[in-house]
Amino acid sequence: MSAHSQAMKTRLTEAFDLTHPIISAPMAFAAGGKMAAAVSHAGGLGLIGGGYGNAEWLAQEFGAAGNAAVGCGFITWKMAENPGVLDLVLERKPAALVLSFGDPAPFAPRIAEAGVPLICQVQTLRDAQAAAECGAQVIVAQGSEAGGHGERRATFTLVPEVADWLARHAPDVLLLAAGGIADGRGLAAALMLGADGVLVGSRLWASAEAKVSSAMTDAAIAATGDTTIRSKVMDTARGLTWPDRYTARVLKNPVTERWHDDLDGLRANPAAQSDWAEGWVAGDPARANTFVGEATGLIHDRPPVAQIIQGMVAEAEALLTRAPGWAGA
Amino acid sequence: MSAHSQAMKTRLTEAFDLTHPIISAPMAFAAGGKMAAAVSHAGGLGLIGGGYGNAEWLAQEFGAAGNAAVGCGFITWKMAENPGVLDLVLERKPAALVLSFGDPAPFAPRIAEAGVPLICQVQTLRDAQAAAECGAQVIVAQGSEAGGHGERRATFTLVPEVADWLARHAPDVLLLAAGGIADGRGLAAALMLGADGVLVGSRLWASAEAKVSSAMTDAAIAATGDTTIRSKVMDTARGLTWPDRYTARVLKNPVTERWHDDLDGLRANPAAQSDWAEGWVAGDPARANTFVGEATGLIHDRPPVAQIIQGMVAEAEALLTRAPGWAGA
Repeated sequence: MSAHSQAMKTRLTEAFDLTHPIISAPMAFAAGGKMAAAVSHAGGLGLIGGGYGNAEWLAQEFGAAGNAAVGCGFITWKMAENPGVLDLVLERKPAALVLSFGDPAPFAPRIAEAGVPLICQVQTLRDAQAAAECGAQVIVAQGSEAGGHGERRATFTLVPEVADWLARHAPDVLLLAAGGIADGRGLAAALMLGADGVLVGSRLWASAEAKVSSAMTDAAIAATGDTTIRSKVMDTARGLTWPDRYTARVLKNPVTERWHDDLDGLRANPAAQSDWAEGWVAGDPARANTFVGEATGLIHDRPPVAQIIQGMVAEAEALLTRAPGWAGA
Repeated sequence: MSAHSQAMKTRLTEAFDLTHPIISAPMAFAAGGKMAAAVSHAGGLGLIGGGYGNAEWLAQEFGAAGNAAVGCGFITWKMAENPGVLDLVLERKPAALVLSFGDPAPFAPRIAEAGVPLICQVQTLRDAQAAAECGAQVIVAQGSEAGGHGERRATFTLVPEVADWLARHAPDVLLLAAGGIADGRGLAAALMLGADGVLVGSRLWASAEAKVSSAMTDAAIAATGDTTIRSKVMDTARGLTWPDRYTARVLKNPVTERWHDDLDGLRANPAAQSDWAEGWVAGDPARANTFVGEATGLIHDRPPVAQIIQGMVAEAEALLTRAPGWAGA
């Protein structure tokens, strides 16, 4: 089905029979079936964003994916409140199941029984160790530069540190880098740091197939990477009880400017919360927030998924092919 | 003078006649003349940490560097309070002058007149633009994962975004990556992201030649990258009036645990401040703080500088040589 002329080769492409070592982030709300299918058709592995666990939305988006081999990702702590949605997804035999933001251990056995590969996204070395110990086949080391929810460690150090630990304790577990990877430079750099591939969020969030408002996409295209912030304003505004350790990266705007240092004030202000919710429904980047990573400064358009992936791969392959020249051999 | 068998080739090695594209961070207190000379002898460019601008210390450390071609770096906002130290250093014809943490524009003309290359370390795209516009020959894009002072943007996205801007507006300005680079993986990844070389702090901070207490080095060797924090506790404790935007990354310890969220309390507590100062003089990682980056999780020993640089280069060259294999050509 794919139109690419090149193919990349890593442990990930071999294990998952992919043409390219690229997995799309299962972004809540944004990563529907159409986007996931486009990623898989382009030679990567597409993931539907199971997000906050809405069963109807999931059924709709698996339908939209058609016959494409796609996976699904959940926000673990939220899915744990309604674990029935995990069973609904496992019945569909997804190509992979991604868990992030919470303890995967209670769900790992059920996923293994279903014969579905478990991918755990982690934000610290400690969580990577726990993920490997509960049987994850793939660990995604997500840096703080990522859009949306995450934590404080950076991609550049988390990836090699997890790689070193896996090499000693779980050498068969694959490793992906996430956070800041939006072009072929990032893909090539991730491989150098010890990753077997990458998980791409923001760059695919700004694709023709993503379920994202035009106004928010335009705001991200106009922004530089200097203008994002990790904040708890958005979850406070919409009453989501995310664990303390996680914040979300968004574009700064009047809402973060006003409330970032006054969450108690926001909690006590139903009008401000309603305004955020209305802004979110309207896709208004000034009243709600645009969930995008620091890579926003590397994003200048909203092309189809296939074009994004082919561009990343072509750029990475050119760098990798040229790399021996730097060694001055 | 160098004992290495390999040589790397980038725009940086050509412009500065180096064997390897590695510059040492001019770390305040830690980067003395002995360390800087060892870096230059190993094929990189060594920098003395001008830090807070103590003229006697600078004279001593330039003496310790002997005949090695070394440069010097200043904390710009602090040097601006006593710019005479810049003239003292320029008279020594340093191989390069690094300015970081403040506006370089007032000092750029004097450095240019002295015929000394100006290297500006920046933490945002906006500051990179300002540095290029005031005539920096080299820009160092420093990510938040770095040890010591810095800001919020990550190496993984800041480097390619600055590279794109320079390619369009100032293509002759060289670009280095800083923050998180502690081994050959980091060096190779930085080149993929668009850098012409790297500036290395933490890894060289934990070298035999660095002026760092054994106890703090041991603490860093024992730590994982999960255990650092960006904080203003240290500058508050020692009464340094750093501009608001800059924090410093250190190992978490009882001091950051107690005061990170209570800076006003620390300001009002002279006993706690004195205790920090005494701990600093004693090199005690529990009473003062260990200034090291997230790369602490990649640091497991305290070898001589030459061994560190040769190891980084050998690892990077192996990766760069192997890179075409990932392209699956």
